[in-house]
Amino acid sequence: MGLLRAAGVVYKPVEQLDLGPDSNEIYVEADIKAPRMGGLLAKIFAWILESRIFGALAFYILKRLNRVHKFISNATVEEPPMFVPLHPYVDLDEQEVIEIDSDASPAERVQQAMNCLPLTSENSLDAFKFSCFRRWTIADYSRAYRNGEITPLKVAERFIYAVHESSSRPLSIAFFINYDAEDILRQATESTLRYERGAPISALDGVPIAVKDEIDCSPYPTTGGTKWLHKVRPCTGDACCVARLRSCGAILVGKTNMHELGATPSGINPHYGPPRNPYDPSRISGGSSSGSAAVVCAGLCPAALGVDGGGSVRMPASLSGVVGFKPTFGRIPHSGVLPLNWTVGMVGVLAGTLEDAFIVYAAISGHLPSHEPTTLPPKIHFPLLNSTNPISNIKLAIYGEWFNDCNEEIRLCCSNAVQLLCERYNWKTVEVTIPELEVMRLAHYVTIGSECSTALSSHLENLGRSEFGWDARVVVDIYGAFNSNEYIKAQKLRYRHMQIHNKIFAKADVIVTPTTGMTAYSISKNALKTGELDYVNGGIVHHRLQKTKGFLRHTR
Amino acid sequence: MGLLRAAGVVYKPVEQLDLGPDSNEIYVEADIKAPRMGGLLAKIFAWILESRIFGALAFYILKRLNRVHKFISNATVEEPPMFVPLHPYVDLDEQEVIEIDSDASPAERVQQAMNCLPLTSENSLDAFKFSCFRRWTIADYSRAYRNGEITPLKVAERFIYAVHESSSRPLSIAFFINYDAEDILRQATESTLRYERGAPISALDGVPIAVKDEIDCSPYPTTGGTKWLHKVRPCTGDACCVARLRSCGAILVGKTNMHELGATPSGINPHYGPPRNPYDPSRISGGSSSGSAAVVCAGLCPAALGVDGGGSVRMPASLSGVVGFKPTFGRIPHSGVLPLNWTVGMVGVLAGTLEDAFIVYAAISGHLPSHEPTTLPPKIHFPLLNSTNPISNIKLAIYGEWFNDCNEEIRLCCSNAVQLLCERYNWKTVEVTIPELEVMRLAHYVTIGSECSTALSSHLENLGRSEFGWDARVVVDIYGAFNSNEYIKAQKLRYRHMQIHNKIFAKADVIVTPTTGMTAYSISKNALKTGELDYVNGGIVHHRLQKTKGFLRHTR
Repeated sequence: MGLLRAAGVVYKPVEQLDLGPDSNEIYVEADIKAPRMGGLLAKIFAWILESRIFGALAFYILKRLNRVHKFISNATVEEPPMFVPLHPYVDLDEQEVIEIDSDASPAERVQQAMNCLPLTSENSLDAFKFSCFRRWTIADYSRAYRNGEITPLKVAERFIYAVHESSSRPLSIAFFINYDAEDILRQATESTLRYERGAPISALDGVPIAVKDEIDCSPYPTTGGTKWLHKVRPCTGDACCVARLRSCGAILVGKTNMHELGATPSGINPHYGPPRNPYDPSRISGGSSSGSAAVVCAGLCPAALGVDGGGSVRMPASLSGVVGFKPTFGRIPHSGVLPLNWTVGMVGVLAGTLEDAFIVYAAISGHLPSHEPTTLPPKIHFPLLNSTNPISNIKLAIYGEWFNDCNEEIRLCCSNAVQLLCERYNWKTVEVTIPELEVMRLAHYVTIGSECSTALSSHLENLGRSEFGWDARVVVDIYGAFNSNEYIKAQKLRYRHMQIHNKIFAKADVIVTPTTGMTAYSISKNALKTGELDYVNGGIVHHRLQKTKGFLRHTR
Repeated sequence: MGLLRAAGVVYKPVEQLDLGPDSNEIYVEADIKAPRMGGLLAKIFAWILESRIFGALAFYILKRLNRVHKFISNATVEEPPMFVPLHPYVDLDEQEVIEIDSDASPAERVQQAMNCLPLTSENSLDAFKFSCFRRWTIADYSRAYRNGEITPLKVAERFIYAVHESSSRPLSIAFFINYDAEDILRQATESTLRYERGAPISALDGVPIAVKDEIDCSPYPTTGGTKWLHKVRPCTGDACCVARLRSCGAILVGKTNMHELGATPSGINPHYGPPRNPYDPSRISGGSSSGSAAVVCAGLCPAALGVDGGGSVRMPASLSGVVGFKPTFGRIPHSGVLPLNWTVGMVGVLAGTLEDAFIVYAAISGHLPSHEPTTLPPKIHFPLLNSTNPISNIKLAIYGEWFNDCNEEIRLCCSNAVQLLCERYNWKTVEVTIPELEVMRLAHYVTIGSECSTALSSHLENLGRSEFGWDARVVVDIYGAFNSNEYIKAQKLRYRHMQIHNKIFAKADVIVTPTTGMTAYSISKNALKTGELDYVNGGIVHHRLQKTKGFLRHTR
């Protein structure tokens, strides 16, 4: 088949096209390879196309002769598709929020976020005294640096030592795909100097933040968890969201491990080792942002960036006991993130506390670069978490059958959490029915699969399947199996569910559900080499995520 | 295969869903049919999926077991897809236009349009004295009604007689799929009474306007040119654009013939007869809005509505020597138009003169119903055609190789037209190169094909292929052959071409090109029964249309 396959065109950037009269762009005449047919010939042609055996071959030949393979199917096109997911923006009259100037610099936005938080208590570390991990919050770092209790350089040195230790036996936790001690120390030295001069850039100055290896971050390649993607797509600089963190003085401590191409929620990577769960290294940390969840869980960083296309931030956060936040589509710039899909993937934040997720979100959100399409107005609202009145009158929508469709321990823990919220803040629950959830799961799978398959299609041509781990290989095979009817119908179902969700959100402020149906499961031995295909466990982990909105109420 | 095929779900309207706690919507648990696999099993699974022979069967079984066929592929979903084509709106500072209040009623907008036109000369009929047709303009009708020279009732009677005559031998022009003399006379009587009371609603009062049988219009069924579509989708009232015309007092004179499902540009319909070209009844009138072009060409109506997804208004207009106008996506409400696609189809206007196209556009444009998504602001600009200074400084972009890629007679005629414009108005031409036009033609074909196939998919299940004419049947077969990679890549190419066009439009105001590469060709005998598949002639007709923008400069 190799010889028969038409090589795809690689379209050059629009800026490089000469549109003047002396352009060397060649005018390609229409060259339609199909006979004029009427009468019996038309009938025979129809019969061939409809035949199970000859039909597929006939279509293959028709597409090939008419240059569909060359110009479309196998072509390399950098541009995004000509649509954006439609989020009709509703300008709610919300209490206890402030609107942020979206033209403010990232550092200014971080300060505005800090102003929304309660005054830092001096003893946040005490909260963790019964935990096996001593996690510092961003405020802890910032205070300790300002007080001179410790320097960013000291933190960086300890960080490098800790990563080295935990990556080796007996723990063997593969947190990172790449981290460069020298680069980390250089950033930390600069930050230390800023504190010495009494001029830190923001509360994030000197704070270690890790980045999923799906997001560009100098000086590292962006592997996407593969052995090959960084070779065909070199990283040329920071992604926009990473540049924003860097401009706040954050120390970018390396590229976290992830499931190969984000393919499944187990997070096990056969090429770079498993990013085990710090609570129990025999278990998964969840995926695909597995390394980002693990570093935050272990207390190595207060926050890390992930990318969430179908739970890839929220699920590992849940399985590793940290906060996971997927913002609304269009809130975070996508430039410099691997284009593995266009309508469901979104940079998200993993953090030890809700406040820290909020601070990082403040740094990376804001107006999009002009070439990134969105239907959202550039309005960002921050919640006033330091309000003297706790946020009141919140209505929590609960769909009982869905909420309870999980393991008993999860059900109990989440029910207790909801009860606690209602008792402490006088919030109310509203019982609702969210129909067609299983349809949504399928529509999401068809969407992310079709888009990922398209993103990879021009690479797949030149790539042996052996470049993939076995689990990613099967997933890529399945992703390529959807036809355009299935993709478009999935988009119709998404629009439908947006209407359904609008009706639910007319009754309630948030939808509350466990994030995963089970806790982190054990890593099997044979999964280490081939990866693991476990759609059933994966499904239990997976199926309780609402996919159309970036809403997650992570319940701990 | 019939028994194996999973029946698709029919999703009920969102308004009918009960989202409360006692809803009878059933919670469907995730039921994932795939074994956990690691090691050798994962490898074998990958090999099966990648096998040419077993792969397709394996995917079929996987999709079926996992209810993809039931919930997605074969499902009936009324909602549009969750995206709209992205037309970044540029608010140009244009001279010689006025902004219209988009909340004005259709009749008010018609009046505003009339105010933009030059004062009506009393002798517009003289312009046609050398033509075989005596076409009245909307202004002619309006003036004659107001002066009492004729009444709408008289016009309706003559219209009915003329349609009857020309539909019979020897002409046998099948203008209409349905028209109801009684309904026409009733509307005409009402209009006549309004003129007698001295209270016509607008300049369109009493003016006969025909509607393509792809647009709902009471009391007629909407066949889409098929034998079956009106049976599975009953017409329940006027489409929004038709209701706007009716509110202006226009007489809706019936449903014009069209190519079955708009499938090809020949316009020949095997079920309802060929809407022959009034200039030469042995030739096609072009399609798919063939009947609408023919009625306007013959002077039966000054204007008619069509729907244009890939030239279906512009091509028949060109081949029948009338004006064809496809507005920008989102300018005309789509409610009540057959949803044969979601991102390329658009109601358009066929008219005897540019002014009449403009008046009808004024009536049917304006704000969209709230459930119709758009990225355009509701701003409508009308050109001031009565300005004392003719519109000046217009730059006409011409891509020579494309412009000249047509029959000699067309090239000559169009070159002369451009020369005339430049001489009379002192307009300038700008030579440009528009790269990848053939790619655009293919990307458009993949898009309209995939969307049309999706639109029909739930019907196709319950419908024998024998319900189709042979040409439409082949087209429907081909439309269903695209995979999701091809569809998504086509959308990427559209975005790319939007960028390319933005660069062209930075240099010039309009792109000028012949609409079709040839004049109307002869109808072959065997095409009458089976329809005709003529992708080569069709392509020559077709390939010179720019598909990403609704720009047409129809040149006569």
